[in-house]
Amino acid sequence: MFSHNGTDTTTPDWVKDAVFYQIFPDRFARSSRVPKQSYLQAWGEAPHPQEYQGGDLLGVVEHLDHLSHLGVTALYFCPVFQSASNHRYHTHDYYKVDPMLGGNAALSELLEQAHARGMKVVLDGVFNHASRGFFQFSDVLENGPHSAYLDWFHVQGFPLRPYHGAEFDSNYLGWWGNRALPKFNTDTPAVREYLWSVGEYWIRQGVDGWRLDVPDEINDDVFWQEFRRRVKTANPEAYIVGEIWEDATRWLKGDQFDAVMNYLFTRPTIGFFGAQTLQSATFKETGYRSMVALNSSEFGKRMTDVLNLYPRAINEAQLNLLGSHDTPRFRTVTGGDESAYRLATLFQMSYVGAPCIYYGDEIGLFGGADPDCRRSFPWDQPESWNREALEYTRILVEARKASVALRRGDFRVLQAEGDTLVFERSHQDARAYVLFNVGQSELVVTVPEMAAGNYFDVLEGQVFEQGALDVRDLSFTLAPRSGKLLVLEG
Amino acid sequence: MFSHNGTDTTTPDWVKDAVFYQIFPDRFARSSRVPKQSYLQAWGEAPHPQEYQGGDLLGVVEHLDHLSHLGVTALYFCPVFQSASNHRYHTHDYYKVDPMLGGNAALSELLEQAHARGMKVVLDGVFNHASRGFFQFSDVLENGPHSAYLDWFHVQGFPLRPYHGAEFDSNYLGWWGNRALPKFNTDTPAVREYLWSVGEYWIRQGVDGWRLDVPDEINDDVFWQEFRRRVKTANPEAYIVGEIWEDATRWLKGDQFDAVMNYLFTRPTIGFFGAQTLQSATFKETGYRSMVALNSSEFGKRMTDVLNLYPRAINEAQLNLLGSHDTPRFRTVTGGDESAYRLATLFQMSYVGAPCIYYGDEIGLFGGADPDCRRSFPWDQPESWNREALEYTRILVEARKASVALRRGDFRVLQAEGDTLVFERSHQDARAYVLFNVGQSELVVTVPEMAAGNYFDVLEGQVFEQGALDVRDLSFTLAPRSGKLLVLEG
Repeated sequence: MFSHNGTDTTTPDWVKDAVFYQIFPDRFARSSRVPKQSYLQAWGEAPHPQEYQGGDLLGVVEHLDHLSHLGVTALYFCPVFQSASNHRYHTHDYYKVDPMLGGNAALSELLEQAHARGMKVVLDGVFNHASRGFFQFSDVLENGPHSAYLDWFHVQGFPLRPYHGAEFDSNYLGWWGNRALPKFNTDTPAVREYLWSVGEYWIRQGVDGWRLDVPDEINDDVFWQEFRRRVKTANPEAYIVGEIWEDATRWLKGDQFDAVMNYLFTRPTIGFFGAQTLQSATFKETGYRSMVALNSSEFGKRMTDVLNLYPRAINEAQLNLLGSHDTPRFRTVTGGDESAYRLATLFQMSYVGAPCIYYGDEIGLFGGADPDCRRSFPWDQPESWNREALEYTRILVEARKASVALRRGDFRVLQAEGDTLVFERSHQDARAYVLFNVGQSELVVTVPEMAAGNYFDVLEGQVFEQGALDVRDLSFTLAPRSGKLLVLEG
Repeated sequence: MFSHNGTDTTTPDWVKDAVFYQIFPDRFARSSRVPKQSYLQAWGEAPHPQEYQGGDLLGVVEHLDHLSHLGVTALYFCPVFQSASNHRYHTHDYYKVDPMLGGNAALSELLEQAHARGMKVVLDGVFNHASRGFFQFSDVLENGPHSAYLDWFHVQGFPLRPYHGAEFDSNYLGWWGNRALPKFNTDTPAVREYLWSVGEYWIRQGVDGWRLDVPDEINDDVFWQEFRRRVKTANPEAYIVGEIWEDATRWLKGDQFDAVMNYLFTRPTIGFFGAQTLQSATFKETGYRSMVALNSSEFGKRMTDVLNLYPRAINEAQLNLLGSHDTPRFRTVTGGDESAYRLATLFQMSYVGAPCIYYGDEIGLFGGADPDCRRSFPWDQPESWNREALEYTRILVEARKASVALRRGDFRVLQAEGDTLVFERSHQDARAYVLFNVGQSELVVTVPEMAAGNYFDVLEGQVFEQGALDVRDLSFTLAPRSGKLLVLEG
């Protein structure tokens, strides 16, 4: 059971109730309303690190029905600002939505249409580094030691060698030594003000939050405290979620971020539900690195421990994902074992924190490490969709949205041994019980001291009566590799 | 006398009545309202090719009194869009005013304040080439053969060598081989549409016209015809003036530009009025190249011939300058001979076409070839101003604005021999006579058949009566190196 520390920390309420959907803009959907350049990959080709497939934000608008049907309530977009890269982490202009995505007008339309459906929109903020074409860096490239913006970056010598091959050393700092991504000098007041202003600007334009790319590489609490102040002044309900892969205690004290991309959720979840089919070759060179198979006891402990790292308000706002644009896809990592997807999704939708579906996972997309995990969504090949997975995911999203226990409840592991995992979510009188059989044989699983009342068995789609008067230990037979979600009817 | 050919050609009426003032934005004036970067030259330092002095558009707003006092009615700005160069010909973003100039908000304020004073604002359109940091070119640099924008430029091989030294050949076309300025491929439909849209956009924002940089290097009449159509659709009174240094017949038929920067006016004017002090060393390596001393007869013929090149509506809209950001300044070219400035300015203000004063010429600024001709305006050193030149210029601007004959009249040389030049401007009943003694001795100059009436002697500031009843030959004594402007009172 996790303790309720940090009671004075606040995070946006809407996040605690949200189900997110992450979109990689070049690959989600194309609209005929956005003019296309001449040199694009065909939609659905194997992703090339440097080529575009021409997805755009109006394409997202035109497929909001799919997202509404799935039940998601918030969209998190990989970068949308003007950038000379298909992933758009090479920011060229923080104030312009990429023309290939439809420009600022397309984002306005998206915000309007998403908000009309009650969906929030969170953008990716890449504030650690810019790109070689970014205006102020371009000024340094053009003017060398005479530039007005010398103190915006970390320049170590002239002439700069931005596009020289590896046989020439770089003479400025780039992100992880990548000369395509000159690192900002965030000690310079003009740079700080610039980045804070960007953060504030888009929130005032109606964006609902920021996912922050590698924010730990701006090693400066004051910078992020002021960033938070600016953003929250513009909209106190704006969400700030950092990309931190490990223990993020430093940033999650309530004065910097609301949450992080919860890879401390992701890796154990894959390691446990995918234990029997883990394809380590698919991820050992990726951000997942040392992901290992876990047994039930280890997993139960890990998922309890992670909740003890942070204040409750933060745990409830964590972004819980099964994969992202930075990882191989869940299906690929787990060798295409659909039972692993079903079990992990059940866990994701019933655990503490906001689930985030990586676009296409709901229809069974495969994909290895970047760039393969960024394949285009096969709107044009509906026969390729895993419609069972889609419906399964939809049902669990709906169940989470219907149950305050799943969204806001305490988390308590009741049983974690062998192939069994059972936990409870409880919020005031609301209860939900989640049961897993991760093994290959049928199992009888007992839930101790179930609260009295009628339960809805979400995956069976039927109610069963536990009885109205008593608390009892109840047993359930679980097929191999299956789970059960029981929600106490109100 | 020039003939009135091309009577179906139309050019904006306001230009025919205008007196322009050309501003180099980095050097005109600084406002404390625009934040400054850390690395700027001090205001007034010898201009460096690559350093900024931090002038901005709010600085212009704050000095509009000076321009109102001088009497100018239109401002022509060297480029103001975001650019990694102090002259801003290296366009980085056509939709953004440079942040160092105060951004788009500063241009809005400038437009509002200038318009409130009845001043028009013309911007410099640099559409032949972009810069290495320009978004679409940056995409080619970043993605090489995989770029979506390959057909926007003229790429000849990979990998591109944009910032390699001269020991490496460039492998894309730049303006005059300059790899800092990648040339647009204006055969590509997306590029054409992009540039036309820029042209239209700023006119719709309230800008009153475009000065076009090296437009003859987009060797495509259809391109410029459509550019004109877009611009004139946005505002039929918008002015389009091309930078063409020689005979511009091809572009001045009424379907492309309204006028050109009239260097066919400039060079003879300097060659005649500055004949005795021409400093060929100061300009032989500049755009002026072969400028030579002219005598009165040669000059009279040249200034008559140039009017026969183009339709009358175009002649009246020509931009007549004594120097620009691309030339050494008038004072430097003529060895600091103030009489040359006075005579040339009298000619400029009384000839056919819109005079354009290069910022600072009115207070006697010197300056050699680029970048020296771009010195900052010495607001902080008022004791350095040539106040006599300022007042002299002001009086002639006022006289031009008061006289329809000077602005719209026929031009007829009455006498051009020895040290004498006399010409008439006549428009219906309006008349003006302009007399020059370019020699070093006093001269008696006769004006044949002067129309009857009272004349205002502009430079003497007094009226003299020619008599109300008759046309007469009248003689005037002119001091050495002096002129006389006589305007028939209405």
